[in-house]
Amino acid sequence: MVDMFKILDCTIRDGGYYTNWDFNKALVDQYIESMNKLPVDYLEIGYRSKPLQGYLGKYFYNPSYELLDLKSKSNKKLVVILNEKDVRVEHLDELLTPIKGIIDMVRIAIDPEHLGRAISLAEGIKKMGFEVGFNVMYMSKWNQYSNFMGDLKFVDGVADYFYMVDSYGGVFPKDVIETIGLVKSNTAVKLGFHGHNNLELALINSLTAVEHGVEIIDSTVWGMGRGAGNLKTELLLAVLNSKYGLSIDFNALGDAVSAFDDLLRKYEWGTNLPYMISGSNSLPQKDVMDWVTTRFYSFNSIIRALQNQKEKVKDN
Amino acid sequence: MVDMFKILDCTIRDGGYYTNWDFNKALVDQYIESMNKLPVDYLEIGYRSKPLQGYLGKYFYNPSYELLDLKSKSNKKLVVILNEKDVRVEHLDELLTPIKGIIDMVRIAIDPEHLGRAISLAEGIKKMGFEVGFNVMYMSKWNQYSNFMGDLKFVDGVADYFYMVDSYGGVFPKDVIETIGLVKSNTAVKLGFHGHNNLELALINSLTAVEHGVEIIDSTVWGMGRGAGNLKTELLLAVLNSKYGLSIDFNALGDAVSAFDDLLRKYEWGTNLPYMISGSNSLPQKDVMDWVTTRFYSFNSIIRALQNQKEKVKDN
Repeated sequence: MVDMFKILDCTIRDGGYYTNWDFNKALVDQYIESMNKLPVDYLEIGYRSKPLQGYLGKYFYNPSYELLDLKSKSNKKLVVILNEKDVRVEHLDELLTPIKGIIDMVRIAIDPEHLGRAISLAEGIKKMGFEVGFNVMYMSKWNQYSNFMGDLKFVDGVADYFYMVDSYGGVFPKDVIETIGLVKSNTAVKLGFHGHNNLELALINSLTAVEHGVEIIDSTVWGMGRGAGNLKTELLLAVLNSKYGLSIDFNALGDAVSAFDDLLRKYEWGTNLPYMISGSNSLPQKDVMDWVTTRFYSFNSIIRALQNQKEKVKDN
Repeated sequence: MVDMFKILDCTIRDGGYYTNWDFNKALVDQYIESMNKLPVDYLEIGYRSKPLQGYLGKYFYNPSYELLDLKSKSNKKLVVILNEKDVRVEHLDELLTPIKGIIDMVRIAIDPEHLGRAISLAEGIKKMGFEVGFNVMYMSKWNQYSNFMGDLKFVDGVADYFYMVDSYGGVFPKDVIETIGLVKSNTAVKLGFHGHNNLELALINSLTAVEHGVEIIDSTVWGMGRGAGNLKTELLLAVLNSKYGLSIDFNALGDAVSAFDDLLRKYEWGTNLPYMISGSNSLPQKDVMDWVTTRFYSFNSIIRALQNQKEKVKDN
């Protein structure tokens, strides 16, 4: 099983939701060095983006000098991600030409509503010589988009990996199996799974995905990532070691984990009651994250607001 | 499904491994008050024990004046647990007579090696009029005890609930199903499941157990408990609410969770890399907990020691 799928660690990209994509350079270097000794295939280093308003850290833009430096230190395939909603085909030259030969794969974060637009964008990226990953959000609601499943055939030959993203962190193993079946009946593209941990199901969902033919899995150190966070890289590797005999340098893995200890204590990501409620009810965790981190609202008022949102009652 | 099983919250008992069974009385009262509004059936308040050497807090001994006070405040069935290794039939009068009419169920923590001795103890407890719960440890190793499965028939009529305890936190849903099948072929006793969260599988294992006929589930607030901790009560209730329509007072649940926030920040229970390794390799998490909390050992040396223990190499 272990040989049959790849691991993409996206700590810097997904963890950036907590640090505003500002990471201490020494931390990033420690991360790169530790990952060099671990059986992870891809490292996603952040976004490439046109200048946006407001402050966003280095790993939201990833200037080519930084990527070149990481490339010189890493033995992994490097990845950046684009937000489909902000990027059009005419921007690709500016965003991607400078990082040709440095970055191996470009992923696209895609709202299922804009799958068609994403396919055009992907064709442009593919022509520039990059591997292309589709990260398609809201897998639990794909059947509510009328043309989505039918349009999946157009992904063949364009995307190298087509990720099912459990945006709300609310899918169960049986949902993973069901969605894989639906997708596989419409496209032959290699599948990926990006799990969130609201209900502490990221590991079992990811292992279930792999058992049912998914070929690439996302994870992050300490599960660092938006809201309740992601599948923990160290958990995935520990289980692959004990259950499937994958060789792991636990000193390197321990170093990777320890490097993020201070950030964990500072930002306290991970699941909690509001994220559990948002996950199990398929409510946007971005809203929850804003409420929780603002600290203006009490725990109970957040829960009430979520319940009202679920019942379509307006908040006061 | 929700009507088919009961929930036992053992926060004070299992959380006591972190606080030495010392809990602020105001916190315990807040906990009792919140639980009154939640669909939890039993509350396990701690141990009953003969005086032991060294300091142990109130909820390790549970004097009857304290239990009487909690009984007056709670609308739940109250539970205490005995350590089978420390208690013989001749101690029962001293330990349990004072709490007759206050405590509904007495549980026994049992090493599978001493199942026979536990059955004699249970017969004594049953005669005193208590419900009896068996909490049998090391479910992942039961098949290594020669007479264990055969002796299960003697549990019938003695235990009201027979818990499978995932002591190492290393079982997967398929293991849960397999063990349930084995146990059910040897006894008709009602089954329980006590999951640990080393691999973040406590929820899926518990739900799987219930789907396969288990009738009572243990959980704790914030998962507070030994080592990596337990199934989180709030996670179980949030999922039962969203997936199975169980009505939950989220304000009460939020109060229960908030009450333990400070202790969580202080003790930082929950899973981490050493617990993941101990769980997935069925190593005792008590050893890991001692190492982690002593803080004398570095993260890496703990991992090395665990690896050596797994390979039966002596530590330096």
